[in-house]
Amino acid sequence: MKNSAILLVQCPDRKGLDATLADFVYRHDGNVLHFEQHVAAELGLFLARIEWDLAGFQMDLKDFPRLFAPVAERFQIKWELALSAHRPRVALFVSKYDHCLVDLLYRWHSGELRCEIPLIISNHPDAQRHADFYNIPYHVIPVSKENKPEAERRQRELLAEHGVELVVLARYMQVLSPDFIRHYAQRIINIHHSFLPAFIGARPHQQAFERGVKLIGATAHYVTEVLDDGPIIEQGVTRISHRDTLEDLVQKGRDLEKVVLSSAVAWHLENRILLYGNKTVIFD
Amino acid sequence: MKNSAILLVQCPDRKGLDATLADFVYRHDGNVLHFEQHVAAELGLFLARIEWDLAGFQMDLKDFPRLFAPVAERFQIKWELALSAHRPRVALFVSKYDHCLVDLLYRWHSGELRCEIPLIISNHPDAQRHADFYNIPYHVIPVSKENKPEAERRQRELLAEHGVELVVLARYMQVLSPDFIRHYAQRIINIHHSFLPAFIGARPHQQAFERGVKLIGATAHYVTEVLDDGPIIEQGVTRISHRDTLEDLVQKGRDLEKVVLSSAVAWHLENRILLYGNKTVIFD
Amino acid sequence: MKNSAILLVQCPDRKGLDATLADFVYRHDGNVLHFEQHVAAELGLFLARIEWDLAGFQMDLKDFPRLFAPVAERFQIKWELALSAHRPRVALFVSKYDHCLVDLLYRWHSGELRCEIPLIISNHPDAQRHADFYNIPYHVIPVSKENKPEAERRQRELLAEHGVELVVLARYMQVLSPDFIRHYAQRIINIHHSFLPAFIGARPHQQAFERGVKLIGATAHYVTEVLDDGPIIEQGVTRISHRDTLEDLVQKGRDLEKVVLSSAVAWHLENRILLYGNKTVIFD
Amino acid sequence: MKNSAILLVQCPDRKGLDATLADFVYRHDGNVLHFEQHVAAELGLFLARIEWDLAGFQMDLKDFPRLFAPVAERFQIKWELALSAHRPRVALFVSKYDHCLVDLLYRWHSGELRCEIPLIISNHPDAQRHADFYNIPYHVIPVSKENKPEAERRQRELLAEHGVELVVLARYMQVLSPDFIRHYAQRIINIHHSFLPAFIGARPHQQAFERGVKLIGATAHYVTEVLDDGPIIEQGVTRISHRDTLEDLVQKGRDLEKVVLSSAVAWHLENRILLYGNKTVIFD
Repeated sequence: MKNSAILLVQCPDRKGLDATLADFVYRHDGNVLHFEQHVAAELGLFLARIEWDLAGFQMDLKDFPRLFAPVAERFQIKWELALSAHRPRVALFVSKYDHCLVDLLYRWHSGELRCEIPLIISNHPDAQRHADFYNIPYHVIPVSKENKPEAERRQRELLAEHGVELVVLARYMQVLSPDFIRHYAQRIINIHHSFLPAFIGARPHQQAFERGVKLIGATAHYVTEVLDDGPIIEQGVTRISHRDTLEDLVQKGRDLEKVVLSSAVAWHLENRILLYGNKTVIFD
Repeated sequence: MKNSAILLVQCPDRKGLDATLADFVYRHDGNVLHFEQHVAAELGLFLARIEWDLAGFQMDLKDFPRLFAPVAERFQIKWELALSAHRPRVALFVSKYDHCLVDLLYRWHSGELRCEIPLIISNHPDAQRHADFYNIPYHVIPVSKENKPEAERRQRELLAEHGVELVVLARYMQVLSPDFIRHYAQRIINIHHSFLPAFIGARPHQQAFERGVKLIGATAHYVTEVLDDGPIIEQGVTRISHRDTLEDLVQKGRDLEKVVLSSAVAWHLENRILLYGNKTVIFD
Repeated sequence: MKNSAILLVQCPDRKGLDATLADFVYRHDGNVLHFEQHVAAELGLFLARIEWDLAGFQMDLKDFPRLFAPVAERFQIKWELALSAHRPRVALFVSKYDHCLVDLLYRWHSGELRCEIPLIISNHPDAQRHADFYNIPYHVIPVSKENKPEAERRQRELLAEHGVELVVLARYMQVLSPDFIRHYAQRIINIHHSFLPAFIGARPHQQAFERGVKLIGATAHYVTEVLDDGPIIEQGVTRISHRDTLEDLVQKGRDLEKVVLSSAVAWHLENRILLYGNKTVIFD
Repeated sequence: MKNSAILLVQCPDRKGLDATLADFVYRHDGNVLHFEQHVAAELGLFLARIEWDLAGFQMDLKDFPRLFAPVAERFQIKWELALSAHRPRVALFVSKYDHCLVDLLYRWHSGELRCEIPLIISNHPDAQRHADFYNIPYHVIPVSKENKPEAERRQRELLAEHGVELVVLARYMQVLSPDFIRHYAQRIINIHHSFLPAFIGARPHQQAFERGVKLIGATAHYVTEVLDDGPIIEQGVTRISHRDTLEDLVQKGRDLEKVVLSSAVAWHLENRILLYGNKTVIFD
């Protein structure tokens, strides 16, 4: 079991950043496991991820903010510190299609996704038995045009109650309100069953079938207030042909959606994603 | 060298179509090499491609229309007959980016594309030397807003003069007039450097870069009067990451465009494409 | 629910085969849904799959062998008739890695795989709870060098008892005896976690890691007496890099194996596979 | 035009490596453009690539070895320094299949491959005209069992004469002697038309066709004395089906080979490849 710290940084690009960051870790006897950086030249932006072993690291991490402050100030660094030992608390939202839910649960249970899943929220009772199988509380909160604010209030109560740090929309078919989204900014991941920005909105497989494309896609992205417009984390495609019916598209899409969504969630949990503008850097 | 006939048919789906078509070939002693059919269930449409060996076939093909007429009438068949020995006359249009042009010329010369290329038309002189290398006449016809009708008139004269049956827009950056397009309906293939319908119009790589997609694409399609909206023949994608600059996208795009466009052209030349509605069937 | 018949044929290539086959169906008022054929030119072999609607078909299928005999005889046809309404009885074999098992069960339950699964056989108790979830009897039959003949005897008793028509080795880590294999010739599908013929035998991921390949693969194949040498049904690959540890390979491999194995099983169940020599034709 | 220095290092993994390396560059006022490192945990090996802007760098690079020596010694670093402004001299070897040659020449001419190509060597005269088109001297040196030592002597004279730093076997069908290979260790890149280690040796497409695989591949690797066994740089695959003849495999293989080989050559020229054991790290 790796016991490491991960520092994500973002700041204007300047000479000496790598040296200063690596030196900061080294001065406290940290052994760097991964050091990845990226310069988004079009914005003059420096982004980096440094992961170091905590074995032998000579610092109480409570002191990190204070000790790192001079460096952060000097380079105007926006930073975030995470611990590999921390297992973020994740809520899964689902509607009727349960393939992504079941897939995430299996990966979680097998240890592939390092997180806690304190609850599942759905607007339908259908997936209850999968939640039961993994002993995860399953909350049915029906959503209609009329009760939406009330439903969201209840959802947010549950999320707060369980200290949820990440919301995964595993084929949850309701649009969340701007207020909800703002509150969980950069902490809601959605899977859209098309290769965005193609086929935004409802029924993307139907749209793809009608347009006669030769590949279908899936896109995992952070949710923003503009529908299907948030920063893209991962995408995948699969080949189709005239022989595929609309049902075949739906079925082939399922395999894509599972792989694309679970990759995105894993990268988020492993603190591999940095956001800048409307784009992501994935440190792999 | 295969010496075969290819019959493409399209009609309302009805019982007995396969039997009648196969029997028609058999009655004249044709040996079927390929028989592929597809029922577009959503339209009740039957589409098929039958290819048979002409060795031993007991019919003068001049008589085919007359002899096939009763069958065609009975099933309301729209049909087309092509000969594998016929090498269609293809005009290549190009602007400044010459990678698709050079690729098509190499494939043509190596025998991969079975066609004649009597001429290349460009609005720029840049690719002349590649045309010279393969001894193909290269016509420079500059196009501006003002002279466009005149330029198209000249282009169409050349096409008519050389009996051109297929126009391939190998990164030709001018939009053709509706009149031109109508005249060569289903006989103009374009390569668009995005995964359509994402990033329609100008500068798709720039659009892709700004949107932060994780895959870029290319689409070969028949040109219709609506920009980038014609029936899709083939599509491909390739993976990119945050490390890729806009120039990297352009470069990676080139490899895609070559493969996607040349596949589309090959399938057209081999009479493997059937159009219905705004979609294609590719009989492979 | 489609109610159709599927005829698979294989014979020396001769003129008139398509016409005769299509006509046979038509004469009994069958409406052809799919007609696909392939000529393996290197062997002079004709292979075809014809599927027709049984609604309105004017024949008791009990009479098919008798009525089709003259055609079969004339063209020396080896044939097989299957009904889409028939749900083959499939036994799943598994050892400790249960990802393929769980995936197949989910697909079966969601209707993607049209079959019965009367039993699961394992040499380990680990996957019991997944079997229980889907209410499928789970038989633990430990296998050691000493008890192998006895274990296989017990396995075959169970298969016979349940009328099993297809055995799927869903990461079953024991080698079956030639006798077992012969008895279920062309009715055992295995998933091997490499791109065969690379990395035959034990620990293919370890082998791949040591060789430093840039892609890893998975192969679904019919089991023959020669290890990992049977006819290949489907293969897939996924990209890896120096950043991937052996554990990462194992994890990435899982997604491949699920998709490749389930495709192979689906095609077998839908009677889309024809075997000739050591190769497969997949009629899609 | 980027004017940068690239330092490739390799040494036992130890604390402080990143800090020391980044600091070394910073102390001389270098602005780091890329910093990538990898720890091959199974070997306890640290590998890194640091690229920095030479604008403003306060060191005469002639002094680099002397100034870097204390660092190198302290960490037992094997290192190499390269300049992005340096265009390595590359010799292309080709036999009759010229698709990779033509592709590399086009990429070189368009600026995609940053190198000089002072000569092409072939055992056949066939590709002469492509060399002429790009004004590159083309040396025909026939090779037979008898004259091989003499032919290699002549080849090596030419390479020496032109100061060749990298040899690219662009479908060169002769096996080089161990002596030749040793002399250009890690400086000969070959393209093999299979997914290694599957189908080592002669006629891999024929082998693939006979085995009935569902994907064919191509592999670019450094040449070592054991045939087709050297460190793999890049691999690609493409889907095939029963419909593909042996000729189709050859044709589809061509597109793969071009992309795979040109990527490998580009990475080598950009000093992105580090070798350890029989494996490569590709810093992208």
